[in-house]
Amino acid sequence: MKRYEEQRVFLKSNFDEFKNVKTDKMKGIPEPSRTKGYDKSSKFIDLPEVNEGVLKNSNIHDCIKNRRSTRFYADENISIEELSYLLWATQGITQTNKAGLTLRTVPCSGATHSFETYLFIMKVHNLKNGLYRYLPFEHKLLFLSELDGIENRIDEITLDQPFVPNFTKKAAVLFAWSTIPYRSEWKFDTTAHKKILIDVGHVCQNLYLASESIGAGTCAIGIYDQKMIDGILGLDGDEEFVIYLAAVGKKQR
Amino acid sequence: MKRYEEQRVFLKSNFDEFKNVKTDKMKGIPEPSRTKGYDKSSKFIDLPEVNEGVLKNSNIHDCIKNRRSTRFYADENISIEELSYLLWATQGITQTNKAGLTLRTVPCSGATHSFETYLFIMKVHNLKNGLYRYLPFEHKLLFLSELDGIENRIDEITLDQPFVPNFTKKAAVLFAWSTIPYRSEWKFDTTAHKKILIDVGHVCQNLYLASESIGAGTCAIGIYDQKMIDGILGLDGDEEFVIYLAAVGKKQR
Repeated sequence: MKRYEEQRVFLKSNFDEFKNVKTDKMKGIPEPSRTKGYDKSSKFIDLPEVNEGVLKNSNIHDCIKNRRSTRFYADENISIEELSYLLWATQGITQTNKAGLTLRTVPCSGATHSFETYLFIMKVHNLKNGLYRYLPFEHKLLFLSELDGIENRIDEITLDQPFVPNFTKKAAVLFAWSTIPYRSEWKFDTTAHKKILIDVGHVCQNLYLASESIGAGTCAIGIYDQKMIDGILGLDGDEEFVIYLAAVGKKQR
Repeated sequence: MKRYEEQRVFLKSNFDEFKNVKTDKMKGIPEPSRTKGYDKSSKFIDLPEVNEGVLKNSNIHDCIKNRRSTRFYADENISIEELSYLLWATQGITQTNKAGLTLRTVPCSGATHSFETYLFIMKVHNLKNGLYRYLPFEHKLLFLSELDGIENRIDEITLDQPFVPNFTKKAAVLFAWSTIPYRSEWKFDTTAHKKILIDVGHVCQNLYLASESIGAGTCAIGIYDQKMIDGILGLDGDEEFVIYLAAVGKKQR
């Protein structure tokens, strides 16, 4: 058997196996927090309310049709209103149900929403360059830190870009989604991991279409230096680690 | 270590490991076909050209905002024009590049597009109930077979629906995406599987938004009877198998 063939099992629905598993939820182990904490004395940035005024082309058919992985960006800022819309489109909470689960702009198996959204900000009007985390419950940004030589650090993280080398450093923002897998494992045990990967695909597709609609382009990035980016963001690499990236910038005209 | 923790490695970017791997592509092994063959004497159904006339709400902001996993459907057909649009939104080819790779309405790592789209048709105007496969290169449907008791078979396949039991059989169409993993493994070896799962998430999110835009609703389904659905579709379960499902139907008004 080829070395990769053994791994195919992770792509399948292992319901039969799962039927006999006692999940942590079934064992009565308390549910993990659905959001990551933060120091109340941190610096927060209020995001403007989501507003259709940012849309350059609101037609969904056009956005789907014109979607491309975009690797050339204009040397142009995006506005905080545009960033607010992109964050809402990818992780925004649109409803909280009776059980306290959040329903968002993207579907997620069991509404476990294991993701946190980190931003490497480089070209956002009125926002200092550096590292931020999105707080979906508050629709705010949490400022984490500055990052010396941020463009070059991004370049190091996204080391293998065969078509357009070094394009990521020219973006306006780099989205970095982490997962806290236990939020899903608590409910789904070993079937969590297939779900987590599919779910981050849902998230990124909304970023593609929402970017199109504001005259920006995005490019998802699946190959990156795992240890380096986890280290930069202060993630332990076990209970939380980066799972997927996407660069966003205004399109060249 | 908990049994699920070992599996977390599949969520990560294993670029360091991958650097030393000789993929089948590097070994000069011929590239697998990017599309599944079919008997030329089969029955084909031409799909109408994709047309914005099907849109009930074309505003992308509204589609993102209103997206919900929809488990209650009207007892109403969808039209072949609407089905054509949903198929195009999920796997439609919008460009073929110089290397012969297809660019589609959804991004895919390395443009390997390992998916085939199968349809369980139940309520589509002027289309006989049964099993079909979408041919993205031709934008046609390939009729596979009728399926006796199709609603109940779908019910058996999608056995575990905690919120609304048996909702899938009341849909107009069940989308079933398979993967032919070697299309991606040839290029990416063991790193293929993470990419395949994320990529099918991209596909399904477009189905969510496109469904919203035509007044339909969808619900993705990650838990299903793997052997049963592979058997019904005639897939071998090794080189090709179902990876994700989504039911679609008109919304109740």
